[in-house]
Amino acid sequence: MEFLGNHILSIDQFDKDDIVKVFLIAEKMIPYANREKKTRVLQGAILSNMFFEASTRTRISFGSAFNLLGGEVRETTGIEASSLAKGESLYDTARVLSGYSDLIVMRHPEKNSVQEFSEASRVPVINAGDGENEHPSQALLDLFTIKLELESKGKSIDGSNIALVGDLKFGRAVHSLCKALNLFENISFNLISPEQLKLPPEIRQDLVYNGMKINEFNSIESGIGDVDIIYVTRVQEERFDSPKEANKYKGLLKLNQNIYTENCEPNTVIMHPLPRDSRPDANELDTDMNENPNLAIYRQTDNGLLVRMALISLILGVDQTLSDYDEDISWVSSKKSN
Amino acid sequence: MEFLGNHILSIDQFDKDDIVKVFLIAEKMIPYANREKKTRVLQGAILSNMFFEASTRTRISFGSAFNLLGGEVRETTGIEASSLAKGESLYDTARVLSGYSDLIVMRHPEKNSVQEFSEASRVPVINAGDGENEHPSQALLDLFTIKLELESKGKSIDGSNIALVGDLKFGRAVHSLCKALNLFENISFNLISPEQLKLPPEIRQDLVYNGMKINEFNSIESGIGDVDIIYVTRVQEERFDSPKEANKYKGLLKLNQNIYTENCEPNTVIMHPLPRDSRPDANELDTDMNENPNLAIYRQTDNGLLVRMALISLILGVDQTLSDYDEDISWVSSKKSN
Amino acid sequence: MEFLGNHILSIDQFDKDDIVKVFLIAEKMIPYANREKKTRVLQGAILSNMFFEASTRTRISFGSAFNLLGGEVRETTGIEASSLAKGESLYDTARVLSGYSDLIVMRHPEKNSVQEFSEASRVPVINAGDGENEHPSQALLDLFTIKLELESKGKSIDGSNIALVGDLKFGRAVHSLCKALNLFENISFNLISPEQLKLPPEIRQDLVYNGMKINEFNSIESGIGDVDIIYVTRVQEERFDSPKEANKYKGLLKLNQNIYTENCEPNTVIMHPLPRDSRPDANELDTDMNENPNLAIYRQTDNGLLVRMALISLILGVDQTLSDYDEDISWVSSKKSN
Repeated sequence: MEFLGNHILSIDQFDKDDIVKVFLIAEKMIPYANREKKTRVLQGAILSNMFFEASTRTRISFGSAFNLLGGEVRETTGIEASSLAKGESLYDTARVLSGYSDLIVMRHPEKNSVQEFSEASRVPVINAGDGENEHPSQALLDLFTIKLELESKGKSIDGSNIALVGDLKFGRAVHSLCKALNLFENISFNLISPEQLKLPPEIRQDLVYNGMKINEFNSIESGIGDVDIIYVTRVQEERFDSPKEANKYKGLLKLNQNIYTENCEPNTVIMHPLPRDSRPDANELDTDMNENPNLAIYRQTDNGLLVRMALISLILGVDQTLSDYDEDISWVSSKKSN
Repeated sequence: MEFLGNHILSIDQFDKDDIVKVFLIAEKMIPYANREKKTRVLQGAILSNMFFEASTRTRISFGSAFNLLGGEVRETTGIEASSLAKGESLYDTARVLSGYSDLIVMRHPEKNSVQEFSEASRVPVINAGDGENEHPSQALLDLFTIKLELESKGKSIDGSNIALVGDLKFGRAVHSLCKALNLFENISFNLISPEQLKLPPEIRQDLVYNGMKINEFNSIESGIGDVDIIYVTRVQEERFDSPKEANKYKGLLKLNQNIYTENCEPNTVIMHPLPRDSRPDANELDTDMNENPNLAIYRQTDNGLLVRMALISLILGVDQTLSDYDEDISWVSSKKSN
Repeated sequence: MEFLGNHILSIDQFDKDDIVKVFLIAEKMIPYANREKKTRVLQGAILSNMFFEASTRTRISFGSAFNLLGGEVRETTGIEASSLAKGESLYDTARVLSGYSDLIVMRHPEKNSVQEFSEASRVPVINAGDGENEHPSQALLDLFTIKLELESKGKSIDGSNIALVGDLKFGRAVHSLCKALNLFENISFNLISPEQLKLPPEIRQDLVYNGMKINEFNSIESGIGDVDIIYVTRVQEERFDSPKEANKYKGLLKLNQNIYTENCEPNTVIMHPLPRDSRPDANELDTDMNENPNLAIYRQTDNGLLVRMALISLILGVDQTLSDYDEDISWVSSKKSN
């Protein structure tokens, strides 16, 4: 794909070369994220960070990524504070907002809303989540993490074994990750979910079509024994008809240190797209694993910053020039990598 | 008026020379808005962008205008997240906040609230809307758009014919625009509204006093036949006693491509202060006109950025020096003018 | 204490030398706050300004302080727009967010929440208020104000007479201020509150232990006759079981110009941590004193900016280097000191 000046709406836009390119630029971002130096390449550029649905992590992550490249951020949080609440169409919002900024990052509760928005936008748009549909930067950061974690153990994505656990029906992170993994070869998937929250058939079929091996389980113990990666997800409460309906599935699948020790190979990597639901009735990934060095969940979010910086750089055409604007850090950073 | 260091509270502050001055500076802002270059003149200056009422467009527009001039933006959205909710007076809020920033832009649901606030503020305040009362930068951008649209057709504001359509009672944009147009000569107004939402008598009288011609209509077809500009507005739902009361008037006056083709002179310009209400029961300006080149609604919002940059520059005294701080754009902009 | 790279969670961390150090740096900030010059020392640094509870003053004050030092600000306002609402633990939020920024300022409604957060954070955290517990920068700005006000009258904190008025039970500002004043000597306290809203016994005991003199009153007239400072507070409505319960105490203790004239020594200084509740049923500090030159409440908030700039500078190690990054102000400032 051509990154320069283009929208990032779906993981489907990426072929394997594109992904390699993003990951290459993402690794170049490490010294900026670790505060060894700073770049001012986007000084004067403006990001409109439009979150029409609750988010902390992704919103702050995109905003910080833009700031780390030297740019400014304007922001909206929540649909109630916006003109959409006065009946404005996405088309109008897009036409108007795209006059104010150089790049728009958008999250919205409705499927395909970001695509609709992007069609009217006069500047590039990055989809930061459109309901249960897509969240491509999450898929990229997950894949980037899988790559780095496996490489650190002398393995590679091709030929790996991955367990997906939890709400595989509504979890857009899982859906997009499956699409991204389809670009690789010979992966074996263990799908672990309640019967009613299984991976949608079309995504499952795509995996099969691409020669992936699929095994299904409805208990966690049975499905995590032989895998390199366990990717745990929370029940996507906000996608259910009612909280009561969602509650039926909360707490059915839980991973904790005990289950891990008894069932997993040593050094099995644990991932989660976060937020994890740490309330007692859910608690799909127990905090008693927080000191387990194989818990990669915070490395994931750190990688998210790198991947987002890479996407922004590629879209705005500064991926090859950013180091021309390097400056020394003028304060004492206590930044420690995870 | 003296712009330097002063508040902008009402369109009444402006005489014709002031408006000419704002428009002159606004045109100088085009290369910055189009990303042909950037200026750092306000680097280190802080705008407090205080929106105590829902807004996307105006809030992001002012914030971006300040960023485009090189400054930083601090922001509040919604009254519930503020000390006003703990019973703090506008006086106190103003005294305190004006210690933190160089300029304050403020929207508030109550009439005259921004004026009250400005009296206690130690830095200049721009009124971005105080209830149904005033929104001077909207009037200026509307007038700037009317000027540019008419000029592109070899006409001028003096002697033009303008139809105002919709909720003329509560629409502060309309009220302020009438005041601004009063500085010009020989304009003919077609006022098109439901009987209960007519232009307030004092505003009507001012127009008459200034020698303007007024015709009144309650159907859209009858009033748009001989005009240069049709200025459509939505029913100002939030100003009515109840949504039910507002609903009585929604959908009574609608403009669409069909009505336009059958009734208007070719190249009649269509404006709207936005947001337009695109829900089926309202839909005062149909989206089937989106590709009509005479639809000026997105040019309006683009012009809003220019006018706001001009006001900020004049108030902070950088209108003559900003190009001393020009720098090249260091990223690839896909900015296209509307 | 060592400031560099450390959290600021409680006023208990400070000894007298630390406070002297903060105040010395705070005074160096005056020319920046008054816009006589600007510094770019934190250009490229990012503050995460996380307010999980309503705030205008403190949030904008910290954000502006960071901007005035040249840095960028990312922000959250309100718990509902955050991952905490999806059941995320403070631990996870801290681990994640601390990957995005160089410093975190946090307010949260629950006691000790900020400390819990800081334990997982990989960057320094400043407590901007954890429920009724602590708000150390407020205590420092109050103390800084007391020092400046007394010095301008040829007095000092040691040996001064201070009246504390209002909700002494739930007012965290009062609690932290008492702790800070404990580092000084021979202060006489007049505690004026309803019986049910008295200063918590452990704080009272600490004062006695440190040799302070304590007198208690339940009417304002009787307790303000012989003091240098009157520190008034509002009823902390949000800490009561119900608004009804809080309403019992609103309006019981009121200071106005009349009471002041009849009871106080000339030039008695009036302070308030703000916001003051100016609704008629509360009105603990009447607006009829707004022009009284001894009303120091706006000097307090101005001092807050200085103290916060000082804390940020000390934590990020730029307190001695910031003037190396000085630049001239390139706009016309109308900043007047209070």
